[in-house]
Amino acid sequence: MDVKTSATVRLTDAQRIDWLRLIRSDNVGPRTFRSLINHFGSARAALDRLPDLARRGGASKPGRICTQDAAEREIAQSARMGVILLAPGEYGYPPRLALIDDAPPLLAVRGVLNVQTQPMIGIVGSRNASGAGLKFAQTIAQDLGRAGFAIASGLARGIDQAAHRVTLQSGTVAVLAGGHDRIYPPEHEDLLLDMIEQGSGAISEMPLGHTPRARDFPRRNRLISGISLGVVIVEAAHRSGSLITARFANEQGREVFAVPGSPLDPRAAGTNDLIKQGATLVTEAADVINAVSPIMGRPVELPMSEPNDPAHDSGEPHADERVRIVNLLGPSPIGIDDLIRMSQVSAASVRTVLFELELAGRLERHGGGMVSLL
Amino acid sequence: MDVKTSATVRLTDAQRIDWLRLIRSDNVGPRTFRSLINHFGSARAALDRLPDLARRGGASKPGRICTQDAAEREIAQSARMGVILLAPGEYGYPPRLALIDDAPPLLAVRGVLNVQTQPMIGIVGSRNASGAGLKFAQTIAQDLGRAGFAIASGLARGIDQAAHRVTLQSGTVAVLAGGHDRIYPPEHEDLLLDMIEQGSGAISEMPLGHTPRARDFPRRNRLISGISLGVVIVEAAHRSGSLITARFANEQGREVFAVPGSPLDPRAAGTNDLIKQGATLVTEAADVINAVSPIMGRPVELPMSEPNDPAHDSGEPHADERVRIVNLLGPSPIGIDDLIRMSQVSAASVRTVLFELELAGRLERHGGGMVSLL
Repeated sequence: MDVKTSATVRLTDAQRIDWLRLIRSDNVGPRTFRSLINHFGSARAALDRLPDLARRGGASKPGRICTQDAAEREIAQSARMGVILLAPGEYGYPPRLALIDDAPPLLAVRGVLNVQTQPMIGIVGSRNASGAGLKFAQTIAQDLGRAGFAIASGLARGIDQAAHRVTLQSGTVAVLAGGHDRIYPPEHEDLLLDMIEQGSGAISEMPLGHTPRARDFPRRNRLISGISLGVVIVEAAHRSGSLITARFANEQGREVFAVPGSPLDPRAAGTNDLIKQGATLVTEAADVINAVSPIMGRPVELPMSEPNDPAHDSGEPHADERVRIVNLLGPSPIGIDDLIRMSQVSAASVRTVLFELELAGRLERHGGGMVSLL
Repeated sequence: MDVKTSATVRLTDAQRIDWLRLIRSDNVGPRTFRSLINHFGSARAALDRLPDLARRGGASKPGRICTQDAAEREIAQSARMGVILLAPGEYGYPPRLALIDDAPPLLAVRGVLNVQTQPMIGIVGSRNASGAGLKFAQTIAQDLGRAGFAIASGLARGIDQAAHRVTLQSGTVAVLAGGHDRIYPPEHEDLLLDMIEQGSGAISEMPLGHTPRARDFPRRNRLISGISLGVVIVEAAHRSGSLITARFANEQGREVFAVPGSPLDPRAAGTNDLIKQGATLVTEAADVINAVSPIMGRPVELPMSEPNDPAHDSGEPHADERVRIVNLLGPSPIGIDDLIRMSQVSAASVRTVLFELELAGRLERHGGGMVSLL
């Protein structure tokens, strides 16, 4: 397996099962997954250590570890509805998504894989959109489609729906907050079927059977921006979900485009604010195309894989080292580098203690190598 | 007369008459006026040389020179309607206006002088404004008025009128395109009277009796931006007069504020474009106040006065030097510095030839020391 060349990344069947087991286990999110793989060298090795780590981290009851059976069943059930589980770097995994800090280790992809490799622009906005907002979303989505971009959105009512609907054929990707068999809102199942039939697609990081909860939508929004070169916010009130997508886009280094509106229109309050904060004002597709053209050619590098040569220091912390590290942690995020320096414990041992705490459900990982106690 | 200290600048009666005669003479604009004063040391000396310069510049018939009588009459008639003629640096001449390249050497000021010394913000926009545009103009004008700013505008229908009307008491300045006795549009004479009565004012660089022509409005717009710290463009279609004001503001180093609107609203096309080009998006008065606060404290320096010690090289060009300079000139603007270097004629003689051409109506002065043949 040559993990250095994106065109040829391919998990073995056994690896895919191990990866799925690891990411579907309790207290393992995308950031933890990546750290575990980097630390232990493979998902297999990490799975072997999970129970012990969680116990030492002080879990009152051991977290659930996804079984071999459950993983095989998810893969088979997914296949039956035309969904495959892809790792970063595999064909059909949106190349830019692989670059984000918390990229899903396995992404459930439905529909034509080709659309996932098109350059993508996210278009999001109010569910309760104005007629002008809907019309604008349709126009810019169509124009971007004609220019060769696929349109990513969230399948919601309003702006999302308008953007998907007019780009069924040029290419559009629905980014789901729940499993592929739990479409939200339910009345958009028909729209999704149209998308799949006409050559577009849908992605989710959630398991089949997962009904989206309120907190899954902000989490999902990072995927809309993550797969895209930039995100167009069409209408957004203050404190709306679209602004979360804009914030993720910013953090991920994606372009943020905002459609202006009258200061007297509350649906433009969020987008006008974004422009004040530096977002690019957009009134037509050319504004988007001109801004992203310079970055389209840049090669996309693969950030994650199973290292051929993992660190050999397995990091077995002493009890007093563990105490020292825990005492340095608190509810405010701290950098792992600072933690290593301040604790004077080896990097490998600090990482091990963090895994223990995490798998016991006591630690949260943030972007930029920051952690905090829960 | 201490011309270095702005608080004490004061023309003598004789100087004021000379200045008025010079600026009211044919082919003398604000830039020529300044060059003449700097070159000959006083308006008086320049007036003495005008006929000779114009003749040598090749004027087919000599340009009209404003007589002593006419100047005295204008001053007296102005006084009768409460208008005084002020030079840059005199109390009541808007301090920031004195800084622009083509500041009027004498400004006809009506109403309370105090308002001219307040920090000012220009508010301009469509004559054919939307209800939302008018409402926004009123709100931001009032809020800026409460914050201590006077509002400058053009007394036009629509946005201008709305901005003046709500700031009668906090302070507002009408910048006229014609003489003070030729109000345009005529139906706004009442508004102007209200302004004067309630402590606001009006300015014009044009003589009494001058009915504004189409080309006087763009010229006037440079005064709206020139007296202001920044200009708010509320609604503006593509190629509208408000965009000319924005361009002047940019050239003069004033802040440009633009109010966003829907891409589907043609009245927002110009303002959205301005934001794309770098104007500050404004949705409330605080956006303006925050942007101009840092520059409000800066002292304003006086750019023009009669030098105590004018250049002594009077610059008498030889005939062949005159030919060489004219041959270097053409319809494309060229820098005076370049002209001096390329002609190898003394700076004083080049300036003299330029005066000759100008007073003969054959030369135009642009910003940044550029000149071109007409």
